[in-house]
Amino acid sequence: MPDILHAVGVKATPAQVYAALTTIDGLAGWWTSDTRGDTKVGDTISFHFGEKARVDVKVLELKPNERVVWQVLDAHGDWIGTKIRFELKQKDALTHIVFKHEGWEQPTEFMHHCSTKWATFLVSLKALLEKGAGAPYPNDTQIAA
Amino acid sequence: MPDILHAVGVKATPAQVYAALTTIDGLAGWWTSDTRGDTKVGDTISFHFGEKARVDVKVLELKPNERVVWQVLDAHGDWIGTKIRFELKQKDALTHIVFKHEGWEQPTEFMHHCSTKWATFLVSLKALLEKGAGAPYPNDTQIAA
Repeated sequence: MPDILHAVGVKATPAQVYAALTTIDGLAGWWTSDTRGDTKVGDTISFHFGEKARVDVKVLELKPNERVVWQVLDAHGDWIGTKIRFELKQKDALTHIVFKHEGWEQPTEFMHHCSTKWATFLVSLKALLEKGAGAPYPNDTQIAA
Repeated sequence: MPDILHAVGVKATPAQVYAALTTIDGLAGWWTSDTRGDTKVGDTISFHFGEKARVDVKVLELKPNERVVWQVLDAHGDWIGTKIRFELKQKDALTHIVFKHEGWEQPTEFMHHCSTKWATFLVSLKALLEKGAGAPYPNDTQIAA
């Protein structure tokens, strides 16, 4: 099965990156400004993208400052059941975020699109941590039009 | 084998996108400003990234306004022998660029990094065609530091 893979290096500590992945305020700063729910293991986080899309994930695994894993509960059909994984690795002054969105059944054109979008959101996460402001939806980088 | 997959929609004709993929000036406008060589089938295009990296590709296949395929001849070791494929599909006022960098032996962290970088360069290609200016190396989006 094809996976979406990305990596970015961020000038921040693993604890700062982890906080941006495990708090509602942090997530709202880089993915979508309309993020709701709770963020402990077993909780559901709901990411709203206006009227057009919503992604609900269950928090599957948390290892402080090292790993965050979500399972997609509800979203565009291709996403349901997929897992989204962030691994954090400190290297000198950087924290490397190694990202994987796995479990896609087919490499559809929509999956290609999501791969590019994830990259722009990870660049947004980097900007949030380094410059204090990301570009979450609805201010995200437009790639489809 | 893992692949890098991306897609972007560009407000341009397939012919305009094809020109940005098959002319030295076009390529220099979005990937690296130091692009050399020739761009017909069988030719070698050499992409220079300062002192730190160079990518030489052989033009494997050209189908006007529809497809461009390169084979990597020389580059970072993980890239050698991989293929880079651009498929163009017109949809209303957009041309969708469906991108694939295939033939990676392993999903190394370097491959994850390259996936994110390709996304930022495809966003650069979109900006070149829509706004008249891309962000090729050395003005590319920094993601590693």
